[in-house]
Amino acid sequence: MKITGFALFGAKPAFEQPLPFGQIYFASWDRYTAAMRGIFDRQYYNNNGPLHQQLDEKLRNFFGVKHVICVHNATLGLMMLADAMGLSGKVIMPAFTFAASAQSLTWAGLEPVFCDVDPATHHIDPDRVKALIGDGVSAIMGVNLWGGACDQSALAAVAKANGIQVYFDSAHAFGCEAGGVKIGNFGRAEVFSFHSENIINAAEGGCICTNDDELAASLWSIRPSYGPDIPVNILRVANARMSEAQAAAALMGLEDFQANRANNEKLFHLYEKFLREIPGLHLMRPAGVSLSNYQHLVCMVDEAEFGMGRDLLIKLLRAENISAKRLFYPGLHRSIPYVNALPQYVETLPYTDRLCARSVQLPMGALISAPDVGRICGILLMAHQNAGEILARHAK
Amino acid sequence: MKITGFALFGAKPAFEQPLPFGQIYFASWDRYTAAMRGIFDRQYYNNNGPLHQQLDEKLRNFFGVKHVICVHNATLGLMMLADAMGLSGKVIMPAFTFAASAQSLTWAGLEPVFCDVDPATHHIDPDRVKALIGDGVSAIMGVNLWGGACDQSALAAVAKANGIQVYFDSAHAFGCEAGGVKIGNFGRAEVFSFHSENIINAAEGGCICTNDDELAASLWSIRPSYGPDIPVNILRVANARMSEAQAAAALMGLEDFQANRANNEKLFHLYEKFLREIPGLHLMRPAGVSLSNYQHLVCMVDEAEFGMGRDLLIKLLRAENISAKRLFYPGLHRSIPYVNALPQYVETLPYTDRLCARSVQLPMGALISAPDVGRICGILLMAHQNAGEILARHAK
Repeated sequence: MKITGFALFGAKPAFEQPLPFGQIYFASWDRYTAAMRGIFDRQYYNNNGPLHQQLDEKLRNFFGVKHVICVHNATLGLMMLADAMGLSGKVIMPAFTFAASAQSLTWAGLEPVFCDVDPATHHIDPDRVKALIGDGVSAIMGVNLWGGACDQSALAAVAKANGIQVYFDSAHAFGCEAGGVKIGNFGRAEVFSFHSENIINAAEGGCICTNDDELAASLWSIRPSYGPDIPVNILRVANARMSEAQAAAALMGLEDFQANRANNEKLFHLYEKFLREIPGLHLMRPAGVSLSNYQHLVCMVDEAEFGMGRDLLIKLLRAENISAKRLFYPGLHRSIPYVNALPQYVETLPYTDRLCARSVQLPMGALISAPDVGRICGILLMAHQNAGEILARHAK
Repeated sequence: MKITGFALFGAKPAFEQPLPFGQIYFASWDRYTAAMRGIFDRQYYNNNGPLHQQLDEKLRNFFGVKHVICVHNATLGLMMLADAMGLSGKVIMPAFTFAASAQSLTWAGLEPVFCDVDPATHHIDPDRVKALIGDGVSAIMGVNLWGGACDQSALAAVAKANGIQVYFDSAHAFGCEAGGVKIGNFGRAEVFSFHSENIINAAEGGCICTNDDELAASLWSIRPSYGPDIPVNILRVANARMSEAQAAAALMGLEDFQANRANNEKLFHLYEKFLREIPGLHLMRPAGVSLSNYQHLVCMVDEAEFGMGRDLLIKLLRAENISAKRLFYPGLHRSIPYVNALPQYVETLPYTDRLCARSVQLPMGALISAPDVGRICGILLMAHQNAGEILARHAK
């Protein structure tokens, strides 16, 4: 292939329509309209409605957890949780995550302490957490990434030894298991996201899981719930209710979860097979789990081996209508407002910096087919094989 | 009529199905499914989508305002706004309002100063506001109630004289006008709600209106927007995005606004006619506006004149499947957490206490018909005429 075959240099893109980079799955129109028809007939649109209550119960069974509190989005879930857990002062968390993880702390009047990650797993490093524990730290927020999970037992041990709490932002980890136990049962509580880029899509949405009765009672009161529990004396309430339309979408996503997870796994293994043949593209396997939802396909680009850097590769893929994305970039420790408010962390996270500079997310999910993966990997291989020429021409 | 004719004493309820007490209006199934079909076809569910952008533009035109920032709900809008306005310390506001008004301040790290209302208008009293201005007060939050509005010029004058800001929780005031100017153009900004109990129903939803470019830029950055403006250096962001499904619902509500407003007005005048004949039930006319949406029908119950108190009347109406409601009860100054956190206000708001003890909200909105209003008022009249006997029997 000549490099003029690349859309970056004027050729027709490999895909006519942009491939979605995330999950973006929704049930069929027939199932959706049937659910919405019911909502119309009941004229009951939000505030703990009948579909919401169904979803609560199905999620409790799915997770095998005592309490599930559905919320409008995971950010609100994390904010409520920080309040309900009675956190104060500082919370140790990774900077290699979505801004909302840290913003939940800022809204709750807390300060993040940014901790570096283990480059092999992309997750927060328990040894580094240990080194950061000090005055004013009341908790650790683990973040479970790309269908993988933190080293929960190590984090639990660090927390216990220091008398602090641990909880998880599990936005990416719906349906995953660690040691055969569903994510959702670890730490004092875990928060999931039903944003459209996750395997359960309620357009926006999320839930908090906990086995702690007292914590659940506070969360119901904060939400505010109109729910099953007695209101408790809490400082802040939030309008974090899930609507019936969101609950309907989440219920359909839950019904289709096994099929979508299986499809993701199949695509993952296909990527794995193809990428083995491409020097310099290192596929991230979901870390620390016995079962993954494989909802994110993430590679590390080794510029020397691959022949071009991550950013040029993304540019080249996007020209082909392949929605590749750098995730997360920059790390929170280098992002507004934290780079200004907490400058002490800027130069302390070398592994986070490396991941932010090299990682790329490729298309995955129910709207992606096996042939799509084949074509994407074909383009990646050609990009590698023609890297020198591409670089030269692009520099002009 | 004998008092055994009341459902409270065992008779069949006057209405077979509970009458909704609020607006709870949604467009027809055909229009709704057409809108949703489009969302399905585009597979674009949230994050400033095409319907969202349409809604932004239509709302800008509707309000005649420079900037409209749509949000998932009004509480988030108020939280963002407190941050974007750079408020600090204390904010003067009424206690006769929905909890979210004050909770937005608590989340933003601010403290409410509860001010009494004018009993004639139900709105915050500018003279009392003046008396409360002191150290640490950075703003006044006016709350526009039941399709009426605060005395904006008086509040603006107080704010100007003291170098503080003024803004409005206008959850109830969509489409209202004061002196021919649309609510949405007053103060530094105003926040509207598209909760299902308001005249525009997006299940949940809302928007912020402002004519201030700098403030709008901050709000777009806080939301976070993926929007038209350049991110600015702000302390907190919030996941307050409106989904496409919400935008679709709000667009339909906007199309139907004039018809629904006109229907509310017709029902209001019908209530007015009937209630004139019932001693002790005093209809609240929307205060301070040249045009009202008439979205709340609120009466004050004078126990001595009417023959029974507000709470027994509500019990009697609910037995008839008429969803009457006390709103707001108790006042925020007597509600958790404020009664504990700010005990200094408990005994300082006599007019608020009086309104909280006497007000009742009756059915209103697109799902209520003129004959419904006739039957409701008939029951109210009979309740008055048989009040002595009802009281005696209920006491047994």
